[in-house]
Amino acid sequence: MSRYLRKRTKKIGVPPGTLIYTGEDIKKTSEVFAIDYDTNSYERIDHPSLSICQTFLKDHHKKTWINVCGINDSNKIAEMGQLFNLHPLLLEDIMNPIQRSKVEDYKNYLFIVSRILKFNHEKQCLEDEQLSLILGPHYLITFTEKDSTVIQAVLERLKIANTRLRTRGVDYLAYCLLDSIVDNYFLYLETEDNKIEALEETILNRPKMSTLSDIQHTKREMAFLRRSIWPMREVINQLRKTESELISSGTKLFFYDVYDHIVQAIETVEGFRDLISGMLDIYMSNINQRTNEIIRLLTIITTIFVPLTFMASLYGMNFSHMPGLQSSWGFHIILALMLFSALTMLYFFKKRQWL
Amino acid sequence: MSRYLRKRTKKIGVPPGTLIYTGEDIKKTSEVFAIDYDTNSYERIDHPSLSICQTFLKDHHKKTWINVCGINDSNKIAEMGQLFNLHPLLLEDIMNPIQRSKVEDYKNYLFIVSRILKFNHEKQCLEDEQLSLILGPHYLITFTEKDSTVIQAVLERLKIANTRLRTRGVDYLAYCLLDSIVDNYFLYLETEDNKIEALEETILNRPKMSTLSDIQHTKREMAFLRRSIWPMREVINQLRKTESELISSGTKLFFYDVYDHIVQAIETVEGFRDLISGMLDIYMSNINQRTNEIIRLLTIITTIFVPLTFMASLYGMNFSHMPGLQSSWGFHIILALMLFSALTMLYFFKKRQWL
Amino acid sequence: MSRYLRKRTKKIGVPPGTLIYTGEDIKKTSEVFAIDYDTNSYERIDHPSLSICQTFLKDHHKKTWINVCGINDSNKIAEMGQLFNLHPLLLEDIMNPIQRSKVEDYKNYLFIVSRILKFNHEKQCLEDEQLSLILGPHYLITFTEKDSTVIQAVLERLKIANTRLRTRGVDYLAYCLLDSIVDNYFLYLETEDNKIEALEETILNRPKMSTLSDIQHTKREMAFLRRSIWPMREVINQLRKTESELISSGTKLFFYDVYDHIVQAIETVEGFRDLISGMLDIYMSNINQRTNEIIRLLTIITTIFVPLTFMASLYGMNFSHMPGLQSSWGFHIILALMLFSALTMLYFFKKRQWL
Amino acid sequence: MSRYLRKRTKKIGVPPGTLIYTGEDIKKTSEVFAIDYDTNSYERIDHPSLSICQTFLKDHHKKTWINVCGINDSNKIAEMGQLFNLHPLLLEDIMNPIQRSKVEDYKNYLFIVSRILKFNHEKQCLEDEQLSLILGPHYLITFTEKDSTVIQAVLERLKIANTRLRTRGVDYLAYCLLDSIVDNYFLYLETEDNKIEALEETILNRPKMSTLSDIQHTKREMAFLRRSIWPMREVINQLRKTESELISSGTKLFFYDVYDHIVQAIETVEGFRDLISGMLDIYMSNINQRTNEIIRLLTIITTIFVPLTFMASLYGMNFSHMPGLQSSWGFHIILALMLFSALTMLYFFKKRQWL
Amino acid sequence: MSRYLRKRTKKIGVPPGTLIYTGEDIKKTSEVFAIDYDTNSYERIDHPSLSICQTFLKDHHKKTWINVCGINDSNKIAEMGQLFNLHPLLLEDIMNPIQRSKVEDYKNYLFIVSRILKFNHEKQCLEDEQLSLILGPHYLITFTEKDSTVIQAVLERLKIANTRLRTRGVDYLAYCLLDSIVDNYFLYLETEDNKIEALEETILNRPKMSTLSDIQHTKREMAFLRRSIWPMREVINQLRKTESELISSGTKLFFYDVYDHIVQAIETVEGFRDLISGMLDIYMSNINQRTNEIIRLLTIITTIFVPLTFMASLYGMNFSHMPGLQSSWGFHIILALMLFSALTMLYFFKKRQWL
Repeated sequence: MSRYLRKRTKKIGVPPGTLIYTGEDIKKTSEVFAIDYDTNSYERIDHPSLSICQTFLKDHHKKTWINVCGINDSNKIAEMGQLFNLHPLLLEDIMNPIQRSKVEDYKNYLFIVSRILKFNHEKQCLEDEQLSLILGPHYLITFTEKDSTVIQAVLERLKIANTRLRTRGVDYLAYCLLDSIVDNYFLYLETEDNKIEALEETILNRPKMSTLSDIQHTKREMAFLRRSIWPMREVINQLRKTESELISSGTKLFFYDVYDHIVQAIETVEGFRDLISGMLDIYMSNINQRTNEIIRLLTIITTIFVPLTFMASLYGMNFSHMPGLQSSWGFHIILALMLFSALTMLYFFKKRQWL
Repeated sequence: MSRYLRKRTKKIGVPPGTLIYTGEDIKKTSEVFAIDYDTNSYERIDHPSLSICQTFLKDHHKKTWINVCGINDSNKIAEMGQLFNLHPLLLEDIMNPIQRSKVEDYKNYLFIVSRILKFNHEKQCLEDEQLSLILGPHYLITFTEKDSTVIQAVLERLKIANTRLRTRGVDYLAYCLLDSIVDNYFLYLETEDNKIEALEETILNRPKMSTLSDIQHTKREMAFLRRSIWPMREVINQLRKTESELISSGTKLFFYDVYDHIVQAIETVEGFRDLISGMLDIYMSNINQRTNEIIRLLTIITTIFVPLTFMASLYGMNFSHMPGLQSSWGFHIILALMLFSALTMLYFFKKRQWL
Repeated sequence: MSRYLRKRTKKIGVPPGTLIYTGEDIKKTSEVFAIDYDTNSYERIDHPSLSICQTFLKDHHKKTWINVCGINDSNKIAEMGQLFNLHPLLLEDIMNPIQRSKVEDYKNYLFIVSRILKFNHEKQCLEDEQLSLILGPHYLITFTEKDSTVIQAVLERLKIANTRLRTRGVDYLAYCLLDSIVDNYFLYLETEDNKIEALEETILNRPKMSTLSDIQHTKREMAFLRRSIWPMREVINQLRKTESELISSGTKLFFYDVYDHIVQAIETVEGFRDLISGMLDIYMSNINQRTNEIIRLLTIITTIFVPLTFMASLYGMNFSHMPGLQSSWGFHIILALMLFSALTMLYFFKKRQWL
Repeated sequence: MSRYLRKRTKKIGVPPGTLIYTGEDIKKTSEVFAIDYDTNSYERIDHPSLSICQTFLKDHHKKTWINVCGINDSNKIAEMGQLFNLHPLLLEDIMNPIQRSKVEDYKNYLFIVSRILKFNHEKQCLEDEQLSLILGPHYLITFTEKDSTVIQAVLERLKIANTRLRTRGVDYLAYCLLDSIVDNYFLYLETEDNKIEALEETILNRPKMSTLSDIQHTKREMAFLRRSIWPMREVINQLRKTESELISSGTKLFFYDVYDHIVQAIETVEGFRDLISGMLDIYMSNINQRTNEIIRLLTIITTIFVPLTFMASLYGMNFSHMPGLQSSWGFHIILALMLFSALTMLYFFKKRQWL
Repeated sequence: MSRYLRKRTKKIGVPPGTLIYTGEDIKKTSEVFAIDYDTNSYERIDHPSLSICQTFLKDHHKKTWINVCGINDSNKIAEMGQLFNLHPLLLEDIMNPIQRSKVEDYKNYLFIVSRILKFNHEKQCLEDEQLSLILGPHYLITFTEKDSTVIQAVLERLKIANTRLRTRGVDYLAYCLLDSIVDNYFLYLETEDNKIEALEETILNRPKMSTLSDIQHTKREMAFLRRSIWPMREVINQLRKTESELISSGTKLFFYDVYDHIVQAIETVEGFRDLISGMLDIYMSNINQRTNEIIRLLTIITTIFVPLTFMASLYGMNFSHMPGLQSSWGFHIILALMLFSALTMLYFFKKRQWL
């Protein structure tokens, strides 16, 4: 939760529309590549100059994908803004990578914000990263915070000529990126699934003190997943139903498919939440059950031996006149009484099913 | 839950529309049958060649049902796709049998995905299996993972001439299959009902450690049922209200009927969920109640005997000068005191209703 | 819950539209009466032949009410179906008396299914029974499983000439029956109210082991009431807003009135559910509170006497050299120490408010 | 809850529209007053004859308010019904003062049912009373069960000439009454607020057995408040958005204001519900925490003294041959051992933070 | 909660529209400033006379911002009301600073009520304060209870020429104020975040008695935040979708941006609520777990030593005839038996994993 808030507070008091990078402090400068492609041709230029970008853009027969990796360079972003004539609020959203997933229709282009899930191995927690897309009629510009596997995977597929990805427009390219992000969710859902199963087994068989914080941790992760995935559903839903001409009706069918996947992801998260919310109850029931068993033992032992000890201590008194003390059978009689008392107790426990 | 996710991850990174079978690894090849029928005639051909299928299809006076059992043969599926001119995303959904139930209207045909519930006796858990239907104007193609009793039951009824099933169109055949699936739910609901009643009795009368995992298991099953049945309701609802001409208004009335059944199934599942969610509380209350009873006994025994033992140990001390030690009544006086103390305690417990 | 499911399973595998009675096995044959009435005339014929029914129906100036009590005679039902030209699915719903309350508009007539609550004194549980109504332009046909007080009450009122019931159309007759059913709910709600108050008192003052199953039982009854009443609200709502001409606008006003009542019934049930769901928590709190009190006593007794007993046992040791053993004040000094120890403990408990 | 149901059952079996008073049995006859007023004139007549009422009504230049206090006189109500040409169902609702708050538009007049909250000092519980309003073009008729402070307060304000209340139409008069009722809610909400705060403190600091029933009682009161206030919101909402010409657009603005108040009241009640639902959990946590502390003491005392007592009893045995028994240091050595054992235990408890 | 209610009750019984200040009793009189500005010019006059205000208003080329700080001077407010021709209910809302956030469209101007969050350091609790805005075509009037940092911050930015704030209309000024309020929320959300994390750690590691009241306190704060932020979302939503011409379409885009922020704030609060509601369960589980551990120790100690003590007391009896008493091995044999008994117990505990 803290991640969200910490970033947000950096912006408080600053006039809206000011371009300040509010993400983590990563030193590296922006890495840009531009790709000009159609069914047969494919040309990639790293660190393209503005003029190259302009050349690519002017060629309306080919499709252009420009990816900016690293968004802390406000000059670069402003440059892009001018080149593509982007709205200042949009640029601010790109540099302030804590936006909820959303679609905004600016007539000439669609602005899509989505979030890529990642596991931070250092902090041992789930994180997400912002992928901003600007989808024009024959260009797609993407902005990421760091190098992402999602971008890489689509990049690889784009190299192969004559595929659907090369034949279809940039809307299909955008679809591929978003589909990739959604598919990615399932990797984390699977991890969570394993965690939850392990947690459940621990709770049922050998609950420990640390189990409580594990449950709370998983709960937080579930809340995080939820907050990432729900707005994404809205994004996909808007895209599949959009009236914008930037997305062809053929591509919309594919968004229907992604929508099905994301609904499955949401159902899974909701199912997980249900299971987790029940876990604490099971944990508590289990602890109470164990306490009950322990107390049962305590009660049995006490109930059997306390009367016996009392009897023994009775004849441990030092009165000079006590009946039977001198009798040679006294000791055996009292032992017999003790045995009888103990057996009576045991029978009682047996009857009550405490043994 | 795991079933879902395990399958899904096989597809990650693969371009959309690729035909890869993602279900369980069943070796057997696809088994196909084609049936050409009308009110009076009925012709069934197993393992039909493509040309036979085509012949059947061309005969617009008769209705054709082609069933493909086993969906791991991607060539077979692709062949069917070509023959009926099916959309690649649809073929992918058929071979990836983890779809949510849904209806998709492709103008010339309806694509319906539904899920058949099954009890896996090996793993002792509920499972579901995908039944995909393609409903054309005078043909119905169905795809199943394995041989299903639902298909068999309808097949038997189809053999009888002059029934409504034979007279009406293929939309009625589709209705019969879906109705059969919904009726099937009630078998499992009844099983669950019995399980829940047994569980409830166990919880109220003799809660055990294993009861906790039984509750959790039933909860998971309930979540599974819910996830299967809810989307099915949406399917039936869409079919009864569809504007597609592939479903006649007469058949729509029958879908209204199935809709009533599925709403009843959902209400039952929701009722079960309510009961189960209350079970853990009852379990815990019961354990606490038992603990209370055990502790009551412990307290009574301790409270009675500990003071008595103290008195006895008092006169067990070895001081040479202790009052009454030499008196011949000393022992009896102390016994009387002990009796009085014990009776006082018992009276106190009686008054507090602890006995 | 089981009632529902047991019946449903009888139908599985049977082609839809087949007339099979699926209710309880009651041997008695159908009892039919037909009443022809208007403001002044009233004619009742028991066990009318079909021709009498037809005569009644043809007389468009008078209103006709035909009641069929006992629905296990499929011939009778089929006969009626032919006479009034009823849809086969409708007949099936009548003979399969486990339908949810619903309204279906068949243009010439409305088909209304409603459920009458009853208390089964044998099984000591709430039950419901199906009342099916077919409301035509000047006739009303009703089907019940057994003889119902609801029918009887309306029958009595119908005998009185010149009342609103006689003057107005059959839609008003249908309203009276449904109003009667809804009024009936309040009788059961009152019974539940008393039960819940008694249960609450038991829980607060003297919780017993059996209280748990009482709570669970009431919860089930509440779920049952809910499942009966909620669909009925939908029925009344549809009737008061229907566009069918079979219900006059004057009668619709009366349905607005019933709607108010049913909303009150629902609010009451929801209020009950709230109270019941809080009961288990109170039960548990109460048990824990009692356990706390018992353990407090245990602790006080133990904490006072265990140190005393230890002191006594110390001087019960048989060492030949122990200080003060021979002193004539030894015994009194140790007694004083014990008293001091006990008083210190008591003071401590007083301060902690454990006494 | 019982109040509702007890009254309702009186009506069961009675034909709808019958005028039977179903409220509490108050002997007093109806008290009626009629006020004819405009900006400058004000004329009040107690117990007006019907002809006076008619005279008042005919004078279209002045506004008329007729208030009927006491609704058990069915003749009076029927008389009014005839004079103003009121619908029989409406009269029934007036005499059956258990209606939910509602607005009904009868074209010529609006029928408004509202509920006034009252605290019954005898039964120490909240109650409500029905205020029925019939708002015509230049008359307002109100019916109350008993004399109400709400009526009195508005009556006082009406006596002052030249106020907005005198200048504006009867719709403003109706608004004033309803506004007064809503303002009244806040008095009770404040009382509840104090109760809840007191309850919360009790629970956190010194929970008692009776606290449980206090919580349950407050819960019931909250349910009662909710059931009174929620329908009132709907009433106000309908009035502010009504298309009836009986409420001028100027007065509608005032209803917007009342709506804001009632939404605040509802938010407060929902907030209270939240707090109360959390109280039982806190109560239970607190009890468990106290039990934990008590058991900790018990364990410490037992764990320290039981081993000591065992050691002492060891040397209390009467074997003739025991090592050290004759030694002059024996007693001191064993004392030293006991001290060591006790200190070890204390150190252990300290480390575990149990002390 | 009390804050709300205490204020509200002051107004009960007072005719609507009466101007009575109902806020806290602050003695200070209203402080007013008026600013006349456009892109290049900026003129601020403190305590302006009415004629100055009128002069400012008449100048349609410049924009005017009048801020009234301190709302307990009813004359001042009435004066403003006359000058700008404001509705009496609106003036009442301004002086009664307990309104929910809302937007009201009075054609010539928009009336916006919003609430500024503040932390009261004296009472150590969150508070909120009302900021009322009247947005006309080229003027903005604001009313605050006290001097607010939100006003100050915007004032500072307004001094700088040629900024967007100076160039755009008063609707943008209103946007800046509301944006500032929403940004402010995040400061408090961050504080809450830290509190919750600290609380969570306390609960998991060292729960104390006071933790319960901390949880309840945080819960109340969360309810307070919720009640402040939710209506604000509605306000922003209405403003971004308003059809009023007072807000230009360019400014609406900025309101879309604030809306995103407020949705994030709401999601965060909901997330907090989730976490808090789970805390009590964890607290309780933790306490139960600790109780379990303590009882385990108690049981182990008791179960080992009670039988040993019994054995010892057996041979502490004073019978003259007891076997082995004179034997020189007797003592050692009994010691061996005791050791064996203790080891058996330990083995049993080890096996049950209680050690």
